[in-house]
Amino acid sequence: MKPTYVFAFADADSTNKQVLGGKGSGLARMTQIGLPVPPGFVVTTEACRRYYADGQRLPSGLMDEVRSHVHTLEKKTGKTYGDRSNPLLVSVRSGAAMSMPGMMDTILNLGMNDEVAKAFGEASRNPRFALDAYRRLIQAFGEIAMGAEERRFAETLEKAKRDNGIAFDHELGVAALEQLCEDYKKIIRNDLGRDFPQDPWTQLELALEAVFRSWMGKRAVDYRREFKITPEMANGTAVNVCTMVFGNMGEDCATGVAFTRDPGTGANELFGEYLVNAQGEDVVAGIRTPKPIAELESEMPEMWGQLLRIRQILEQEYHEVQDFEFTIERGTLYMLQTRNGKMNATASVRTSLDLVEEGIISKEEALLRISPDHLEQLLHRRIDPAAAAEPIATGLPASPGAAHGRVVFDADDAERLGREGASVILVREETKPEDIHGFFQAKGILTSRGGKTSHAAVVARGMGKPCVVGAEEILINDRERVATVNGRRIVEGDEITIDGGSGAVFAGEVPTVDPEFGPEMRAILAWADDVRALGVRANADTPQAAARAREMGAEGIGLCRTERMFSAADRLPIVRDMILAGSPEDREAAIEKLRPMQKADFKGIFKAMDGLPVTIRLLDPPLHEFLPSLESLLLEISSLRLARERLGAANNPEPVVAALEPSLRESLPPVEQLRAKIHGQDGKLVIDELIDQRQALLHKVRETTEVNPMLGHRGVRLGITVPELYKMQIGAILEAVAESAKEGVDAVCEIMIPQVSEPKELVRVREFVDDVCQAVEHEYGVEVDFKFGTMIEAVRACVRAGAIAEVTEFFSFGTNDLTQATFSFSREDAEQKFLPFYVEHDILPQNPFEALDVHGVGRLMKTAIELGRKVKPDLKVGICGEHGGHPRSIEFCHTVRLDYVSCSAFRVPIARLAAAQAKLLEDRRSRDELDHPDYPFNIL
Amino acid sequence: MKPTYVFAFADADSTNKQVLGGKGSGLARMTQIGLPVPPGFVVTTEACRRYYADGQRLPSGLMDEVRSHVHTLEKKTGKTYGDRSNPLLVSVRSGAAMSMPGMMDTILNLGMNDEVAKAFGEASRNPRFALDAYRRLIQAFGEIAMGAEERRFAETLEKAKRDNGIAFDHELGVAALEQLCEDYKKIIRNDLGRDFPQDPWTQLELALEAVFRSWMGKRAVDYRREFKITPEMANGTAVNVCTMVFGNMGEDCATGVAFTRDPGTGANELFGEYLVNAQGEDVVAGIRTPKPIAELESEMPEMWGQLLRIRQILEQEYHEVQDFEFTIERGTLYMLQTRNGKMNATASVRTSLDLVEEGIISKEEALLRISPDHLEQLLHRRIDPAAAAEPIATGLPASPGAAHGRVVFDADDAERLGREGASVILVREETKPEDIHGFFQAKGILTSRGGKTSHAAVVARGMGKPCVVGAEEILINDRERVATVNGRRIVEGDEITIDGGSGAVFAGEVPTVDPEFGPEMRAILAWADDVRALGVRANADTPQAAARAREMGAEGIGLCRTERMFSAADRLPIVRDMILAGSPEDREAAIEKLRPMQKADFKGIFKAMDGLPVTIRLLDPPLHEFLPSLESLLLEISSLRLARERLGAANNPEPVVAALEPSLRESLPPVEQLRAKIHGQDGKLVIDELIDQRQALLHKVRETTEVNPMLGHRGVRLGITVPELYKMQIGAILEAVAESAKEGVDAVCEIMIPQVSEPKELVRVREFVDDVCQAVEHEYGVEVDFKFGTMIEAVRACVRAGAIAEVTEFFSFGTNDLTQATFSFSREDAEQKFLPFYVEHDILPQNPFEALDVHGVGRLMKTAIELGRKVKPDLKVGICGEHGGHPRSIEFCHTVRLDYVSCSAFRVPIARLAAAQAKLLEDRRSRDELDHPDYPFNIL
Repeated sequence: MKPTYVFAFADADSTNKQVLGGKGSGLARMTQIGLPVPPGFVVTTEACRRYYADGQRLPSGLMDEVRSHVHTLEKKTGKTYGDRSNPLLVSVRSGAAMSMPGMMDTILNLGMNDEVAKAFGEASRNPRFALDAYRRLIQAFGEIAMGAEERRFAETLEKAKRDNGIAFDHELGVAALEQLCEDYKKIIRNDLGRDFPQDPWTQLELALEAVFRSWMGKRAVDYRREFKITPEMANGTAVNVCTMVFGNMGEDCATGVAFTRDPGTGANELFGEYLVNAQGEDVVAGIRTPKPIAELESEMPEMWGQLLRIRQILEQEYHEVQDFEFTIERGTLYMLQTRNGKMNATASVRTSLDLVEEGIISKEEALLRISPDHLEQLLHRRIDPAAAAEPIATGLPASPGAAHGRVVFDADDAERLGREGASVILVREETKPEDIHGFFQAKGILTSRGGKTSHAAVVARGMGKPCVVGAEEILINDRERVATVNGRRIVEGDEITIDGGSGAVFAGEVPTVDPEFGPEMRAILAWADDVRALGVRANADTPQAAARAREMGAEGIGLCRTERMFSAADRLPIVRDMILAGSPEDREAAIEKLRPMQKADFKGIFKAMDGLPVTIRLLDPPLHEFLPSLESLLLEISSLRLARERLGAANNPEPVVAALEPSLRESLPPVEQLRAKIHGQDGKLVIDELIDQRQALLHKVRETTEVNPMLGHRGVRLGITVPELYKMQIGAILEAVAESAKEGVDAVCEIMIPQVSEPKELVRVREFVDDVCQAVEHEYGVEVDFKFGTMIEAVRACVRAGAIAEVTEFFSFGTNDLTQATFSFSREDAEQKFLPFYVEHDILPQNPFEALDVHGVGRLMKTAIELGRKVKPDLKVGICGEHGGHPRSIEFCHTVRLDYVSCSAFRVPIARLAAAQAKLLEDRRSRDELDHPDYPFNIL
Repeated sequence: MKPTYVFAFADADSTNKQVLGGKGSGLARMTQIGLPVPPGFVVTTEACRRYYADGQRLPSGLMDEVRSHVHTLEKKTGKTYGDRSNPLLVSVRSGAAMSMPGMMDTILNLGMNDEVAKAFGEASRNPRFALDAYRRLIQAFGEIAMGAEERRFAETLEKAKRDNGIAFDHELGVAALEQLCEDYKKIIRNDLGRDFPQDPWTQLELALEAVFRSWMGKRAVDYRREFKITPEMANGTAVNVCTMVFGNMGEDCATGVAFTRDPGTGANELFGEYLVNAQGEDVVAGIRTPKPIAELESEMPEMWGQLLRIRQILEQEYHEVQDFEFTIERGTLYMLQTRNGKMNATASVRTSLDLVEEGIISKEEALLRISPDHLEQLLHRRIDPAAAAEPIATGLPASPGAAHGRVVFDADDAERLGREGASVILVREETKPEDIHGFFQAKGILTSRGGKTSHAAVVARGMGKPCVVGAEEILINDRERVATVNGRRIVEGDEITIDGGSGAVFAGEVPTVDPEFGPEMRAILAWADDVRALGVRANADTPQAAARAREMGAEGIGLCRTERMFSAADRLPIVRDMILAGSPEDREAAIEKLRPMQKADFKGIFKAMDGLPVTIRLLDPPLHEFLPSLESLLLEISSLRLARERLGAANNPEPVVAALEPSLRESLPPVEQLRAKIHGQDGKLVIDELIDQRQALLHKVRETTEVNPMLGHRGVRLGITVPELYKMQIGAILEAVAESAKEGVDAVCEIMIPQVSEPKELVRVREFVDDVCQAVEHEYGVEVDFKFGTMIEAVRACVRAGAIAEVTEFFSFGTNDLTQATFSFSREDAEQKFLPFYVEHDILPQNPFEALDVHGVGRLMKTAIELGRKVKPDLKVGICGEHGGHPRSIEFCHTVRLDYVSCSAFRVPIARLAAAQAKLLEDRRSRDELDHPDYPFNIL
C-alpha cells in the first residue's frame, strides 16, 4: 500500500502536529470544529522526508494526490484551477512541527497566468487588483521557486514608480502593472533562461518543491541549530495548500492578526490589529498603520461579533490563549492560522488564573502552562523590556535582577556610600570574604573575573543581589580605581546598570520594572502547593534571609552555611587570629570568641523559622579562604620593600608614601611623623615592621594554601583534625536550641556535616555532638532535640550510602560539589575555560552546573538513595545544591523521590511551581512511557 | 553443656591457632608428631574472653579442669604437684594467635614453696639450684601475679651481691640465696600486705589470672594498636602450662634457640646458638655469650643428631623454615616452642627455591611464601641493614632505593657535576619541570615540600631514582644554597645519604647493598608467570625506560605519558612558545616543532617493545604546568624593581647585581658593561626589559592558572579545545607506526585519551584520529594499525562506561585520579594535611592512594567493567595508576578480571609475583568463602 501524503483539512488527524506541521494542524482543527477556514489540504512532513530520502525528488504519486485534492477544492468552491472565467487561486505555505517564523517560504495566488489574470480582472471588475496579484505571484514564484534575485524585481518596481511619478506601490495603475508583469517575466527569462510557467499545475509542483527545499535552506538550518531544534522536535516541513481569500478586494475586505487575550497584560479582551482592504503581508510591511482590533467593532460590527465568538470557541478548544490570523473577503470572515499565543510573564500568570476562573481550564492545566522562567522574571526587578539599551559588555549572569548605581571599586567605599543612602554598584576584578561588608550596602556586584561559583556570584545569589561576574571585556584596576571597556573609561561615581539575569552591563541608568509577588502569583503557588509531592526549603544564612525565605513559601531551611558567619567584617579578624594562633590556647581563645556570635545567629534563624526545620551545615571551606591571597601579599611586600629603599635615599617621605597603594598608605604613620622619623633614622623601621607582619602572614598562607582547594582540607576533614572548631559550632547550635526553647521558640534543628566520604568520619563527629549535647542539657536543664545528617557531595558517599545511612538521620545532596567530582570538572575553571565550548559544540547538552546531569550525577544520586533507604526506609533525603532551584532538575528530584529541594529564597516560588509540574507530568505519563528507555529519567 | 577450656598438648586441635594461640598450637602439633615436648596443656583464648566477659573472673569450672589436667601431668611424669620429695614444677606462658613478643607474661617454676625448695634441693643434690629457682619464682610471681615493684627486688639483689662481695648472680651461695628468698618474701609482705602464697594451687590460679590480665596491659594494648592487630587476628591470649625442664642442672644440660635454615642467607643448615648449663632467659640476657649451634656437634654429638632429625621433621610438617627453642636436661632433648621463621628478603627467595628443589613444598607454596615487600627490597640498592646510622630527618618515602652523594641545590649544578662523574643528590624545596635535566644526572632527589605525587616524586619514580619528599624538618633555601635541619647546616658539597624506601635522610655516607635480580629471582618469577592470569605491563615514557621494563618482564607498556616529552630541557622553551603564542600561526609553528621530537620518542619506544603493545596517552596535564609559578615570577619582578631603584641611585652596579638571585644575575649583561651603561643612563633599561618580559609571562600565568588544576583544563578537555595539539601528537604516533613498519619493527600501538567523562569527547577525538590516520596512510603508502581507548579516571566515565565502550577498544583505569575524585581528596593536599591523621585514627584503614579503596573506588571500577563488558564482552581492561604495582590492589584487580596491571618498571617483578599469588589465593578459597560478605572483595 502506498502511503498517503495529502490530507484535506476536513479529514486530517489534527492532533498529529509531527505529520501536519503546526499550521496544518491548526487549519485542520479549526475546519473540523466548524470555524470558517478556506478549503484546503496539507502535504505532510512525511512527503518532505521522502523528498530528501529520494535525492530531492517529489515522491511518485504525490502530484496525483495533489491534483485529486485540488479537484475537491474546485467542487467545494465552484471555481476551477487554471480556469479563465472563474479561476481557483491557492496559496502554498510551509509549516513544520515547531514554529520557525520567516525561515521557510510561502507563495500566494498560484493558479494565475497571463490569461487568467486578464479574465479574472474582467470577471471581478477589478483589473488592477488582478494584475497586482499576478505581479506578486511572478515575483514570489520567480524568487522562491525559480531562483531569481529579489534585487532585480525591486529595481524594476522602483523604476516603474519613478517613470509613473508615484511614491507607493498601490498607486500603480492598470497599464503600469501590465508593463510590470511583462518586465518581471523578462527578468526571469533573461536571468534564468527559462520562462515563468504559464501552466498552473507546473506552478503548483514547483512551489511544493520550493517549500521542501527551503527546509534545508541556510536560514532554516541555522535557525534550528541556534534554537536547538532536533529532528525529534521537527523533522521536515509540511505544505499547506489553501484556497486564496482576499482582504484587498475593497472596503468590505480586511485582514488582521489577533490574540484571544492581551499577551502583554493578560487582559481578557481581544488584542490585535487589522487593515481594511489589504493583504496579510501589508499588516507586517508597515507601509500603512494598522488599526487596533477594537475599532472593528464600529467599522464592521458583524465581523466583530463573529470574532468574539471564534475567540471563545478557540480557547474552549485549545485550553490556551490563541494567536490567529484572519481575512475578511467581501463581508465573509476566514481564519487562516491559529497557534498558542506567546505571552510575557505577567500575562501568563494572569491568564492562568482567569482561564481557571472562567472554567476553561483546570487548575492542573493552569499550573502546567506557566513556565518557571516566566515566574523567575516576575520575581526580580528587571530591565524594562521597552528600554532599548545597548550593553557595553556582557558577563556571566550570576544572580538575577537589575540594578543601577554609582560605581565603587572598594568594599569600604561601598559600605560608606551605601550607608549614606547612595545607590552603588561594587565593581571589582574579583571579590574575597573580606569584601562582604560592601555587598550588604551595594545594589549590585560586577566582577571581571570568576565564574558562577566565584565568591561574588555565590554570595550575591545568597543575598539575592543582582550580580554579573566574569565580564572579561571590562579591564578593572581595583587599585587605580578605574575600569576600561572597549576604550571607554569608567571611573568612581559613574552610573552603570547591570542585569544579573542576562549578564548585560549598561552605561548610565537604564529603566527597570518592579518585581511582582502579588495575589495572583500567591494564588497560583497555593495551587502548586496542593499538588506537589516534593517539599521546598530555602538556603539561608541569616535571620533576615530566613524570614524572606519563609515569606516566599519555604517550608524550612535546607542549608544554613555557617562560614558566611565567619566572613562578616567583625569576625574575620578573629577567624584570622584563630588561623594564625601560635599556641593551642590562643587558638581556643579565638574560637571561643566566635561562639556567642554564632549562637546569636542561630537563635535569630530559629526564631524566624519557628516550628520549621533548619539544617545547619558545619564549617565547609578550607581555612585559607579566610586569609588574603598569596599574590596580594607578595605585591604588598614588594611595594613596601621598594618604599623602604626609597625612604633610605629620600629626605622627604611624601612622594614615596604617595606612590604606595592606599591600603598600605593607611597602615603607615602620618607623613609628618614619618618625616621626623626619617631624620631620626627609623622611618625604615616602621616599614620593616609592616614587612615582617606580612611575611608572617605569607608564611601561613604558603603553609595552608592548597593545590586543589576544592578537594582539600575542608569540611569534615577540617572538623576532625581541628576538633575545637566543630565542637564550638555544635555548642553554639545546641545552646541556641536550648535558649530558644526557654524563650518559647520551637527550634527544629538539623546538624549537617559536609564533605563526608566515609562513615567513620560521621561516627567521630557524632561523638563530638553527643558530648556537647550532654553538657548543654546539663547546663540548661532542658532536653535538646536535633537530627544528625550529612551532605552527600563526595562520590564515595554515594557508593557507601548504606553504611552512611546507618549513622545518620538525613541526607542532603550537594550537587554542585558532586557534579565537580563526577565530571572531574572544577566549576570555576570549567566555566571559564571549556564548558561554553562543550555546550556550543554539543559535547554536553547543557552546563551540568545549571541543569543536573541525570546520566552521571543523577545515576549516583539514585544509587545513594536506594542504598540509604534500603538501610533506613524513612531516611529523609533532600538536595541543597543550586540544582534544587532548577525546574528540569527538580523534575528529576521528584522522580527519584527526594523529600525536598532547597534553593535560594528567591527561587522558592519557582521550585514550588516546578515541583507541582513534575508531579502533574508524571501523573500524565503512562506506565509504558515511564518505563521506556528513552524517558529521560530512566537512567542506566 | 559446659565449654571445655583446657586441652592437653596431645589432644588439642593443633590447627586452631585462634583458640590455642600460636605457642600452644606449636606445642600441640610437635607433641602429636612425636617430637619430645614436655607434657603440658593449653588453657584456651576462649577462657580469656570469658574472663573479660565475666568482669575479670576466671570462668567457673576452669580450675577444676586445670587440676584434672595437672593430675594427668603427674601421672605422665611420675611427679606430684606440690610434693616435697618429687615435686612437679610447671611453667605458665602466654600465647596469643598473633606473636606479640615480650608483650605478655611468663612465670616459671610454679609449684615451689619453702618446703618444696628445701626438699627439692636435697633430692636433686643441688640445693643451690633449687633455691635459685625458688628466688626467681618469688620475684616473677611477686611482680606479675601480685603487683610488686621490680625495682625493689633488683635493689635487694644488688645489696646481697655487695654484702657477699661478688659481681654475678650465679656466684651467690646457698646461704645468700636462702637469705634472698626470705628478703624477697618480706618485700611482698611489706609492700603489698599479703604473703607470697605457699599453696601451689593458689600459685597456679593467680598465675593464670595474671596472664589473662596481661592481655589488656598497657604494653600489649599499645602493641596491638601499633601493629594494627585486630580482634579478628587475635582475640585474647591462651595460657600454656608445661612441665618444667631445666637446662641449668649441670654440664649435661643446655638450652638454645635455632632456625632450621639460616634466616639471613637462606643457607640449608641449622642456624642458632646455645648455652651449656643455662636457663632459656640466660641466652637472651647477654651475660654469658652463647655458642654457635654448630659447636653442639662436637660438644653433644647425640643431641646434635637429634636436632638434625627434628629439623627435617619440622620442615616436612610445616612446609616452612622453623624458629624453635629447645632445652637439654641431663642428656634429654626437649622442644619448648616452634614457629615459622622470620627471614630477610634474600633468605626468603633462596629457601623458596631450595624447599621446592628438596621436594618439601610445591612451586605454588613457594610463590605464596615470598612477600612482595621482600621482593621490593631486593630490587633496589638499600641501606645496609648492618649499618646502625641515625637519620637526621625523615620525609615521605617517594621512590625506593638508597643513594648517597654530594648535595647540590640546583638542577644545572646537578647536571654539570653529574656529567663530570660526581655522585650528587639534588636537594630542593620542591622541583619543577624545568629541573628535569638535573634528575637525569642526580643519584637521588630530596625535597622539603610536596607529597607522593609531587613533581619530584612522580618523576623520580618514573626514572627509578631514590627520592625522599616533604622532609619538612629540613629548611631548604634554594637561593642561598644552604639547608638547615635541627640546627645542623648543610651546604653545597656536603655528603648525605637518602633512603627512598623509608624516607630517612642521613648525614655523610651510609653503607648500602646492591640490588639483586639474579637467577634465583628469575626462576621464581618464571613460576609466577606460569600461574598468573593477569597480564603485567609497565609505565614507561622513554625508549630506555621501555627497554628496562621489558628486561623486568613487562609484557607491554600500559602507560606512556607524552607530557614527559614536553618537559625535557630542549623542549620546554618550545612548549612555552606554544603557550605564549600571540597568533594561531605562531602556536601552530611551535606545535609543529614538537612533532619530529615526539615521533622520534615513539619510534624508540616501539623499537624497544617490538611486538609488544604500547599504550600512549595523549597530553594530560594543564598547560600552565609548563609555565613558571606565579610566586616565582612575582618574586623575580620584585627583585628586579628593587635593583632598578638601586641602580638609579648607585654609581657602581656591582653590589646591586651581587644582591640578585643567581638566575636573575645571569640574565643581566656583565657588570663592566652595566657600569658603562649606567653612565650612559641605560642600565635601568636593561632591567626594564627583563621586568616587561616577566610581566608578560605573569599575565599568561594569571590567565591560565586554575583554582583546582586537577579538575581543570587538561586531558581531553584541552585536546578538544586546542585540537592542533592532539592532532600533532596523533600524527607523530601514527607516523612513528608507519615508519617503524617500514623499518621492520612491529609497532603495536594503542592510543589512549585521558580525563574522559563523556562518550562524545571520544567521538570527537576519534574524528581527529581517523582524519590523521587517512593522511598518514596516504603519505606512507602503508596500512596503519592501532587501537583506540580511554583512561577511566573520571567517576562519570565509570557510570557511563557502557556508552564509552561503544566508541573504544580498551579501558585503562587511572586509579590515582579516580581515587581523588571518588573521595574528593586532592592527593597532594590530603597527604600533607589530613590523611596521616585519618590512618592513624583509623578513620581510613590505609592511605587510599597506596592501597586501592575497594569499597569506594573498587566499587566504581566494578561498575565500569560490568557496563563496559556488557556492551563489548572482549573489551580489554587494565589499570595504569600506581595501584597497579601494589600487591593487595593487584589481588583486587585479579578478582574483578582485569586483563592487566601496569606499574613502574621497577615494580614489574612485584606485580608478576602478586598476580600469581592472587590467582593461587583465589583458587584456594572455596565458593562459600568467595561469596561470603566478609570476603574483602565482595563489595557492596
